Amino acid sequence: MSATPYQQLEQEWKRLHAFRGALALLRWDAAVMMPKGSADIRGEQLAALETEHHTLLTAPRISRLLDRAQASAPGLDEWQLGNLREMRRQRDHAIATPVTLVSRLARATARAEVTWLEARRANDFALFAPHLEEVLQLVRDKAQLLGQALNLAPYDALIDEFSPGVTMADIDAMFKSLSRRLPGLIREAMELQAKHPALPLAGKFPVAKQRQLVVEIMKAAGFRFEGGRIDESEHPFTEGVPGDIRVTTRYDVDDVFSGLLAALHETGHAMYDLGLPREWRDQPVGRDRGMAIEESQSLMIEMIVCRSRPFVRYLLPLLRKHFAVSGPEWEPGNVYAHLTRVQRGLIRVDADELTYPLHIQLRYELEKKLLSGALAVRELPDAWADFMQARFEVRPVTQQEGCLQDIHWAAGSFGYFPSYALGAAIAAQLFEKLRADVPALDEQLARGEFGGLFGWLREHVHGLGAKLSTQELLKLATGKPLTAAASLRYLEGKYLEDPASRSAAA
Amino acid sequence: MSATPYQQLEQEWKRLHAFRGALALLRWDAAVMMPKGSADIRGEQLAALETEHHTLLTAPRISRLLDRAQASAPGLDEWQLGNLREMRRQRDHAIATPVTLVSRLARATARAEVTWLEARRANDFALFAPHLEEVLQLVRDKAQLLGQALNLAPYDALIDEFSPGVTMADIDAMFKSLSRRLPGLIREAMELQAKHPALPLAGKFPVAKQRQLVVEIMKAAGFRFEGGRIDESEHPFTEGVPGDIRVTTRYDVDDVFSGLLAALHETGHAMYDLGLPREWRDQPVGRDRGMAIEESQSLMIEMIVCRSRPFVRYLLPLLRKHFAVSGPEWEPGNVYAHLTRVQRGLIRVDADELTYPLHIQLRYELEKKLLSGALAVRELPDAWADFMQARFEVRPVTQQEGCLQDIHWAAGSFGYFPSYALGAAIAAQLFEKLRADVPALDEQLARGEFGGLFGWLREHVHGLGAKLSTQELLKLATGKPLTAAASLRYLEGKYLEDPASRSAAA
Repeated sequence: MSATPYQQLEQEWKRLHAFRGALALLRWDAAVMMPKGSADIRGEQLAALETEHHTLLTAPRISRLLDRAQASAPGLDEWQLGNLREMRRQRDHAIATPVTLVSRLARATARAEVTWLEARRANDFALFAPHLEEVLQLVRDKAQLLGQALNLAPYDALIDEFSPGVTMADIDAMFKSLSRRLPGLIREAMELQAKHPALPLAGKFPVAKQRQLVVEIMKAAGFRFEGGRIDESEHPFTEGVPGDIRVTTRYDVDDVFSGLLAALHETGHAMYDLGLPREWRDQPVGRDRGMAIEESQSLMIEMIVCRSRPFVRYLLPLLRKHFAVSGPEWEPGNVYAHLTRVQRGLIRVDADELTYPLHIQLRYELEKKLLSGALAVRELPDAWADFMQARFEVRPVTQQEGCLQDIHWAAGSFGYFPSYALGAAIAAQLFEKLRADVPALDEQLARGEFGGLFGWLREHVHGLGAKLSTQELLKLATGKPLTAAASLRYLEGKYLEDPASRSAAA
Repeated sequence: MSATPYQQLEQEWKRLHAFRGALALLRWDAAVMMPKGSADIRGEQLAALETEHHTLLTAPRISRLLDRAQASAPGLDEWQLGNLREMRRQRDHAIATPVTLVSRLARATARAEVTWLEARRANDFALFAPHLEEVLQLVRDKAQLLGQALNLAPYDALIDEFSPGVTMADIDAMFKSLSRRLPGLIREAMELQAKHPALPLAGKFPVAKQRQLVVEIMKAAGFRFEGGRIDESEHPFTEGVPGDIRVTTRYDVDDVFSGLLAALHETGHAMYDLGLPREWRDQPVGRDRGMAIEESQSLMIEMIVCRSRPFVRYLLPLLRKHFAVSGPEWEPGNVYAHLTRVQRGLIRVDADELTYPLHIQLRYELEKKLLSGALAVRELPDAWADFMQARFEVRPVTQQEGCLQDIHWAAGSFGYFPSYALGAAIAAQLFEKLRADVPALDEQLARGEFGGLFGWLREHVHGLGAKLSTQELLKLATGKPLTAAASLRYLEGKYLEDPASRSAAA
């Protein structure tokens, strides 16, 4: 019996999945292992593979098979139908972008990423600017073509690549809700915290021991090291495919939390990837449901779970074991105060929950202007600094703490940043329901048991892959469409907590 | 002006080169970095990329272009002609092997390599046997098809992949020459050494410091870390492409020389790759001239250069610096005696120059029998042990020191082992001429200056790429075709040296 068109498509995507896995490894290696002089060579490799992937995906044979499989759709189950829909989506996106553009973008971003690293080290934006200019021009071309093909505004077309179905209008609405309450909430929280200042957590935390701590907690969380690794890179990230997940972080010998929380942020991504439906691993419907949901998983772990009193209860004995910390500053109440301290800081990945959305808004506003041409690349450092000055009342002195802090634009990822703010809102909405469904959650987390947490997430998020849309998934899991309401409830509850009850509970 | 057929071929091979580089990275990662549970996934990736590489290389368009370029060959220079010849060679090899076999072999070897690692750790040949059986069957099919297409005996066809133009007859002739003299020479050398026993070099050599020492010497040799790395793996190897060379070694905390010499063996390969003609880097004629020449470069460094009195003079201050070694056993004469000690040992990569060819002969004889079916896989451990017993008077007790010590067969590399013995003979023949052409060589090496050595090699070997055949290259560099004569002269001079002059010169 010969294979049906749908079955043939599954075979084609199995091969495409292998290409994607190879590409992921080439990128991981470039950021973690590759000698710095090899960027051009890697650029050629990425370009060759991405071009080939694109050629395979846009082949006339695929389009014919998609049409024939669609015609026999009544015979498919709901997973297969979802798979077919995601196949079409991938093909539609790919076919809108000519292969020459794909390959030029691959080469340009490979060069730009390496130059970004150098420029960041040297605090020299001028070094990076021509590369960003080149990437930006290519992304503009891509946005134009994608927008025409998908009948979306250019920037919406870019967002659609990362968070299917989300538009600029949704993001504007979310930022509008948040902007109404956040600035006041930040001020109130900071005033409250100023009345009960936390003792400083000074100390030296050898990187080798930080690594051990991170591995121990990742294991407790359920990260499988037989199918993954953790390494170090300039910018923490998660790469790879389920079954070979590569997580990175970066350590600061003066701050035990920075590397740990970055690692656990990435572990949130990794646990999502590991929880995707196993039997659909090499198919489109078995992938994550876009970056907004991805970021909801990483931010839930980093922000909601790890910056909580139960997690502090679990963490403290580990800190004592690995670093022999002691003294009143290492009491639970003080450590919790430290982890929830609100500050108008310069670095996004070090930001607290309250100021984080503003970091994203900055990038969101600036990348829209860069794309439209309203802002020139050479004006970026000043525009960045001005925004920080106006909204954070601090101004970056170096480019490392300014517009050279993130790799995203070097990687051509315009339209990605909003996912972080969407992710934070989704995380709060999911967690509100999770907490209601798992009453023992706090006790579990305080014992370092993550089964209740990830069990719920696997059932309601991870295990669904890309079967539902972002909104459908959220509706099914929480009974409600996405709004910023749960997020604001959560933040108010946490950051306006009565200081008296705070110290009693600690 | 449109591109000529030849120019179009160069473009095609540029893409193929990028695929080869990506494949090299996937393999390097599998041996050095990959989580152990990810072998199946990596197997799929390797299979997908190798299949695609094969499809691109065997496309009708390539054959048409090759024919058209051949027709305009009079307009090409000698490098371009060499390039065209190598393109044809690659195409001829590829077209003889159907794509399904390529992909099955890629999957089978990926699984077999991982199982080999486990089997080796567990000292359990039975675990590995079914995988070797599967690989062997596929290699047999390939040898059959290749032999038919190239009009060669099946085993000769496999050799031709690794060392173009070399046949079983050449190898048999070489082993015949060596067998006539080697056993006697080994006995005489061992008797001589027994009269002047070396003091043992006991001590603990922390791996972190060994790594530093290795990097320091690799840098002195000219290895460019901006375009390469050194890491650790079960079996030392060199992977990658010029511009991104990945070398590995393995360290033994009880033996400072084992990891160092393995690393310098691989550095010999790496220096060859780095010295290949830069402007032909992504073309067939810019590649190395097969594995016999490759191994001549690694063995020349490891055996001839590093196990010499001048190198010991350079090395000793470094050993004192890194490990604070002292005492009579760390005097030059004793260290040289240690590095040139002849022993009938069990491990090929730890073997001395005199017994090394016998290790190769063992593998050569056994792999011929495995391929022909004269030896069954299950009989391999005993056949191996019997050969060792007969020729070395020692019998492996574990499989780690027996037939599980090398990765080659797991990787499907049948026909590769003879390259080591050919390489040793070529190394001696090249070095005889090099020493005559560079009279200051010993003084340079004693100062840690490798410019004279690698300058000569770059001019006479590395810089020629694959422009000449193995024999042409050797004739041009030394004035003579390949024989075992220089090798035997070199070994007799070194190992039958008068003990009196030995201690005086030390």
